[in-house]
Amino acid sequence: MDRSPFFADLLNTIADRGRMMLNLVRGDEPVSADSLARLCTRLLSSQGEASGVAYAREILERWRALDADGRLAFLHVLRDRFGTDHARLADAVDAYRDAPDDRTALALHDAAEPARQELLRRLNLSPGGIETLVRMREDLLARLPASPDLAIVDADFTHLLSSWFNRGFLVLRRIDWSTPANILEKIIRYEAVHAIHTWDDLRRRIEPDDRLCYAFFHPQLGDEPLIFVEVALTRAMPLTIAELLADERPPVQPRLATTAVFYSISNCQEGLRGISFGNFLIKQVVEDLRRDLPGLTDFVTLSPVPGFARWLAEQTDPSAAEALNLVANEGWHADPALRERAGQHLLPLAVQYFLEARTTSGKVIDPVARFHLGNGARLERINLLGDLSSRALRQAHGLMVNYSYKLDDIEKNHELFAAKNDVAAAPTVRRLLPKAVVRSATPQLLPPGRSAQP
Amino acid sequence: MDRSPFFADLLNTIADRGRMMLNLVRGDEPVSADSLARLCTRLLSSQGEASGVAYAREILERWRALDADGRLAFLHVLRDRFGTDHARLADAVDAYRDAPDDRTALALHDAAEPARQELLRRLNLSPGGIETLVRMREDLLARLPASPDLAIVDADFTHLLSSWFNRGFLVLRRIDWSTPANILEKIIRYEAVHAIHTWDDLRRRIEPDDRLCYAFFHPQLGDEPLIFVEVALTRAMPLTIAELLADERPPVQPRLATTAVFYSISNCQEGLRGISFGNFLIKQVVEDLRRDLPGLTDFVTLSPVPGFARWLAEQTDPSAAEALNLVANEGWHADPALRERAGQHLLPLAVQYFLEARTTSGKVIDPVARFHLGNGARLERINLLGDLSSRALRQAHGLMVNYSYKLDDIEKNHELFAAKNDVAAAPTVRRLLPKAVVRSATPQLLPPGRSAQP
Amino acid sequence: MDRSPFFADLLNTIADRGRMMLNLVRGDEPVSADSLARLCTRLLSSQGEASGVAYAREILERWRALDADGRLAFLHVLRDRFGTDHARLADAVDAYRDAPDDRTALALHDAAEPARQELLRRLNLSPGGIETLVRMREDLLARLPASPDLAIVDADFTHLLSSWFNRGFLVLRRIDWSTPANILEKIIRYEAVHAIHTWDDLRRRIEPDDRLCYAFFHPQLGDEPLIFVEVALTRAMPLTIAELLADERPPVQPRLATTAVFYSISNCQEGLRGISFGNFLIKQVVEDLRRDLPGLTDFVTLSPVPGFARWLAEQTDPSAAEALNLVANEGWHADPALRERAGQHLLPLAVQYFLEARTTSGKVIDPVARFHLGNGARLERINLLGDLSSRALRQAHGLMVNYSYKLDDIEKNHELFAAKNDVAAAPTVRRLLPKAVVRSATPQLLPPGRSAQP
Amino acid sequence: MDRSPFFADLLNTIADRGRMMLNLVRGDEPVSADSLARLCTRLLSSQGEASGVAYAREILERWRALDADGRLAFLHVLRDRFGTDHARLADAVDAYRDAPDDRTALALHDAAEPARQELLRRLNLSPGGIETLVRMREDLLARLPASPDLAIVDADFTHLLSSWFNRGFLVLRRIDWSTPANILEKIIRYEAVHAIHTWDDLRRRIEPDDRLCYAFFHPQLGDEPLIFVEVALTRAMPLTIAELLADERPPVQPRLATTAVFYSISNCQEGLRGISFGNFLIKQVVEDLRRDLPGLTDFVTLSPVPGFARWLAEQTDPSAAEALNLVANEGWHADPALRERAGQHLLPLAVQYFLEARTTSGKVIDPVARFHLGNGARLERINLLGDLSSRALRQAHGLMVNYSYKLDDIEKNHELFAAKNDVAAAPTVRRLLPKAVVRSATPQLLPPGRSAQP
Repeated sequence: MDRSPFFADLLNTIADRGRMMLNLVRGDEPVSADSLARLCTRLLSSQGEASGVAYAREILERWRALDADGRLAFLHVLRDRFGTDHARLADAVDAYRDAPDDRTALALHDAAEPARQELLRRLNLSPGGIETLVRMREDLLARLPASPDLAIVDADFTHLLSSWFNRGFLVLRRIDWSTPANILEKIIRYEAVHAIHTWDDLRRRIEPDDRLCYAFFHPQLGDEPLIFVEVALTRAMPLTIAELLADERPPVQPRLATTAVFYSISNCQEGLRGISFGNFLIKQVVEDLRRDLPGLTDFVTLSPVPGFARWLAEQTDPSAAEALNLVANEGWHADPALRERAGQHLLPLAVQYFLEARTTSGKVIDPVARFHLGNGARLERINLLGDLSSRALRQAHGLMVNYSYKLDDIEKNHELFAAKNDVAAAPTVRRLLPKAVVRSATPQLLPPGRSAQP
Repeated sequence: MDRSPFFADLLNTIADRGRMMLNLVRGDEPVSADSLARLCTRLLSSQGEASGVAYAREILERWRALDADGRLAFLHVLRDRFGTDHARLADAVDAYRDAPDDRTALALHDAAEPARQELLRRLNLSPGGIETLVRMREDLLARLPASPDLAIVDADFTHLLSSWFNRGFLVLRRIDWSTPANILEKIIRYEAVHAIHTWDDLRRRIEPDDRLCYAFFHPQLGDEPLIFVEVALTRAMPLTIAELLADERPPVQPRLATTAVFYSISNCQEGLRGISFGNFLIKQVVEDLRRDLPGLTDFVTLSPVPGFARWLAEQTDPSAAEALNLVANEGWHADPALRERAGQHLLPLAVQYFLEARTTSGKVIDPVARFHLGNGARLERINLLGDLSSRALRQAHGLMVNYSYKLDDIEKNHELFAAKNDVAAAPTVRRLLPKAVVRSATPQLLPPGRSAQP
Repeated sequence: MDRSPFFADLLNTIADRGRMMLNLVRGDEPVSADSLARLCTRLLSSQGEASGVAYAREILERWRALDADGRLAFLHVLRDRFGTDHARLADAVDAYRDAPDDRTALALHDAAEPARQELLRRLNLSPGGIETLVRMREDLLARLPASPDLAIVDADFTHLLSSWFNRGFLVLRRIDWSTPANILEKIIRYEAVHAIHTWDDLRRRIEPDDRLCYAFFHPQLGDEPLIFVEVALTRAMPLTIAELLADERPPVQPRLATTAVFYSISNCQEGLRGISFGNFLIKQVVEDLRRDLPGLTDFVTLSPVPGFARWLAEQTDPSAAEALNLVANEGWHADPALRERAGQHLLPLAVQYFLEARTTSGKVIDPVARFHLGNGARLERINLLGDLSSRALRQAHGLMVNYSYKLDDIEKNHELFAAKNDVAAAPTVRRLLPKAVVRSATPQLLPPGRSAQP
Repeated sequence: MDRSPFFADLLNTIADRGRMMLNLVRGDEPVSADSLARLCTRLLSSQGEASGVAYAREILERWRALDADGRLAFLHVLRDRFGTDHARLADAVDAYRDAPDDRTALALHDAAEPARQELLRRLNLSPGGIETLVRMREDLLARLPASPDLAIVDADFTHLLSSWFNRGFLVLRRIDWSTPANILEKIIRYEAVHAIHTWDDLRRRIEPDDRLCYAFFHPQLGDEPLIFVEVALTRAMPLTIAELLADERPPVQPRLATTAVFYSISNCQEGLRGISFGNFLIKQVVEDLRRDLPGLTDFVTLSPVPGFARWLAEQTDPSAAEALNLVANEGWHADPALRERAGQHLLPLAVQYFLEARTTSGKVIDPVARFHLGNGARLERINLLGDLSSRALRQAHGLMVNYSYKLDDIEKNHELFAAKNDVAAAPTVRRLLPKAVVRSATPQLLPPGRSAQP
């Protein structure tokens, strides 16, 4: 049922009607966390459809009008006034203890549910409600480090958003130069890995036949992408980001490409952090590409190593010290001699960083590595001087890596990683681990996996 | 991302891959509730995406292959083996009693959740999973009367289906003669009120400009309608179903119509019983029609009265006895004298049935009345001999009624009905209540509300 | 720019406005060919857009209201009053003779154009104009045999319709069970070869995975198909139509099919007769199927032989006489002995009919053969008892044939046929020509033991 | 039938096949007008579908590879070798003179048709043919001034393009910020009146609710717009372009707007010059806006006056001399005193320019005026200092005008203008004509105190 852009949509009409009946004209009381709390209470007790939608819309509109302090106060309201009904729960506990069976357990389950969950469900029925709830969680996440006591509120958001953003609802769409401009501007805005500066920049990433982009969308968020991945079709696993983003480069005919490179994955909705789609996005794109371009044999990433420099700075062995010493020279990467010497140290250290170094809780340190290895990918190659942007030099002394997705190994890799933090790595990478003397390091980029490439 | 009909879809590919890895080739063990139970256990403990999807698909495929006994056994498996983990819950209860706060309450909430809920969530990730789960609940509902112990399993189905069929996901579509045939055949099949016998029958309901039909769809159920409503545009509130369904009738130009008549509402998915969409469907259609056809002023139904005859049979007062006596004459409705006398008794009894009679739990008896009055509609008129089909004669001695939806009163009507079972009724209906002598009853149809029509 | 079904479309609005200005309220003069002639004259001299569209619409509406005599009179009007302006043409001829160059030739070209062409162009600008013009030509074609003097009018229709139905405008759409019902009912109505009796009949032709249907549409004719072809996917070239249309048959998985059988091609618009799309439709479908189903290797038809019986009845040689004698026995085809003897005669006669018999103007006699051979197909096989319907028995003594489309030979076959009426035929067909003794049923041609055919 | 972007389309496949058969591998002869001529001859004599499409595609591909000299030579080829067949025409002339009737006239019509027309028709069947033919005419039009002998070639292009771009085929689409980027970049490129410099510029023209844009498209040209119009919704007829294009301005709610201002109309396809769509575009947009926004009462333009300065420079009367003298002061428009004095002279001269001045052939001088007046618009107001861009100052001394489209007057205005060059003008404009002393700026016409204009 198409709607003219000139006409308000139905839910708004219903809500308008509800508001009139309920004398909810905004401005009748000051917008404050307190007034919102009163409205939330009324929403939870309302039974009419129209009044419910009217309250929900009013609450969300007032929330959007709150300043930072007001929003914090509202989070406290959510935490303090819409938690569990302990009197009711105590009764349910007693009943369960009297007769501990599935029926009393389910009653207990219901009684233990915080009122917040029903509140959030009802807010979600407002027109555009889900979008505002995502923004609300974004606000919440930003405050969590300073207010860990809000974690209990986040638990309810996470539970419900996971259900509403259930993978079955996600829609994959190709993004290209014939995509509507209002979506493209979001791609520009949300690109988190390799910034897109202008519309011409963007066009270079999505218009050529050997550059693809795919995004997930959700029916209730309309034209708002959730996550997108940029893909380059090439004839070899790339060593540097520069070769992929170059203005002038010989295009590759898609049918002749052998390799699909996932060189940038960006989450768009901070408020959906932790509700994972990336895993599934990559796999779906791999399947689609395999079907459309049977010539593709390799599915790899070209990924940053954002935790490397920080980890290295904490290492104390002589090789690390020497490496840090060398890269302390400004412009070291432009000097062939410095570059070679630095590479001889950085490469084995990087291998150690991936394969051996762990956080105190036993996890792989690099967050990007955790994502891809957790998806079942394999660490395929480490590329010195893969990215010479100031950010990459600062975070990773220029390192980039390739992870590869081999469909037949994904499940096995994933299970080993999940169970034991075992990192799947190409033999050519693994071989560099035991302080192997790095001979004459192939000029600036030492592609260690090269010889083993199928 | 369109898919050729010739190619399997992605989730199937993933599942195929998973199945191969897991040696899940069907046939390796007999299809039984027991083997399904084992697979369910494995699904709950699996961590890989592909293996999870593979298990889920396998379980659902095997379930579809089960016979009635196997399906009952599987429901028992769900009831007995995938309930609450009582050991874990006991610990959570202890922890809560030690420190009863929101945090321990939430932990209690989690611990009290039956394993079934996570199991159903994971089954839902299989390709086409949601559809099979709806079928599974259909099977469950059919057994509930005989096996009330399955109610606890149904509680979990209801909880999750309510979330997945959240109103925000529903899509309203007009059904007309340019609707795809595979959808239309479902309209034919699911019409529950006034049967559609042939494609020509169907065409008479959806092709003329003064006959409309709208349905709700859900993105994951594709072309499967959830509920639909049939609407006639007229210039007066109709007295009989025959005048709406007549083969030959003068069509009304939509712009000149004053009245939209909802004359049939059918739920399509037995497995979604109790997960209500009808309320919202009517209101959305009313809003859409108001926008497109400003000439419409009245939104009414022409509805059956399915509980009247049964109720009447239990009445013992003289008028009821006389009425029953009269309608016991076969063909009474074709005899002017019998018809008039019967009407004089039936009409006040019908008013009493709606306004005063109540179930033992205090509810309005008629299920259709409960639906419309619960939505905020008003009982507008009672039509003797509104439907002379054998079903209607048997269930309601031919009675039909009009409910009217006045947007400004909906909320108020709804709240009074919800709070006190107060039935909103037109004064012309209400006036008939106190044993009023029904004079000279307008021939066979006595439209009591006529004079009050705006 | 979508339009609500409740609102008139723009051209109508413009035309309404024009009509008011021009006092064109219908009924102000009687609807007659004469009044139409006056309006046509005004249309040709009008300059305003609105008035032009208003005249055009009025003319076409009045034409639709004419009875058969009125329409014939209108065709005479077109023939007599909107031909060439001979005075103007005479001047142009003189000018050309004075200075015969391309400039004067072009002026001559313009002057010689009948006024009808501009009239038809202007009528085409009316809302829905093209559809009425197609109906008008349908009327014209039906009268041509009796009124050959109308051929000159038809020449102008043909010229303009060929341009408007230019192949570049045609849109190919798959027809299946998810096609809108209003299109499907046209498929039922227009099927010209093997009648579709019910919606269930139709469903058997378009819903199974191994049954496909494709149609051409034109943007200005909306949901009105121009031509469609029905295709069966099989694993062998079929011998009989019954095996394709059987209710119960084992379906073939599309990926395993080797053969696409075009078993019915129907033109939908009698008014577009002679404006050929069939050629292009088959080739486009072949290309699409090759792309989507690489397993397909053979593209063949199963076609009727509508001219065979009539031709045979005129033959006088002994074999023909004997054949006619045999098939004169009612039920001959159900009697094994009769059937075998008839086949021994019919088969070589059929080969002769295709390969040697010619019309007085030297053409292949069979119209279906002319179509497929003219498209570059090859006569692949002759199937005795291919169709036992009463029509096929009457027209072809039950014969059907397969033509095959081999893409690499199409052009060559086409050119030889166009140039010399050379019929491309399989060696197995050709071999039967020289009065070869047909032994007890050539294996590959005579369907052995088909006694069970319905 | 959607096609994957990775697969070539059907016509190309057919053409590829045809090319192989015909040994048309490009490069086998040099690309020259002469080689094209030979291919054109072969195309005209080819009968096969595949070979025809192959020739056509080859010709168009070679044409695109030609340099300017080659393209001129090819136009000469078209002019000289594909004109009328004079021998055949002479016979037809003789036949006509022998028996001058409609039949021989039609034969004459056919014989007089230049071979070019059939050649162009066949070229149009190539994939993408129409687009290249539009480019070819663009080339031709650019050469016409220098080579008027090519006009006869242009006559054939015009005839055929008019038929193929028949109004009935045009599709109106709204252009807004959700329009695909590949279309939007064409809007940026083709804007001919008020240049769009950046994507942000563009967004200001199409994203706000009170800024609209509509374009015509043609099915065979895909995403290539033919013409588009930009519309501002306002509450008064605007005086200056600056007020419409300002970065910061209070937006108008569409429902409250009274006036739709067409402030820029751009033709996109130079090769379609003279094949008019603008007339129809404006009228269709007016109708659509009236339907969607009933509050709109005025439909006006804000238009440039490109011929005014040139005309004024040729005037010799004292007022003109004085006006020219005043505007010769650089920055006159920023000086209140100069501005006022200049206005007193320019305004009546402008009225004279529109109402009285005519070309030698009796036409209104201003091309934009001819377009709108020819469409039936009325000259509503003359705005001094309407556009202070250097181009507008140079061409029109800053003048802009409003034309208004009143639906009830369009036809009458159009007919008077077409018949007698009668200019419809508002009384307030007309009153200024008879050398009326322009007192300190007629209130409604001279924008008072516009010194702050950027």
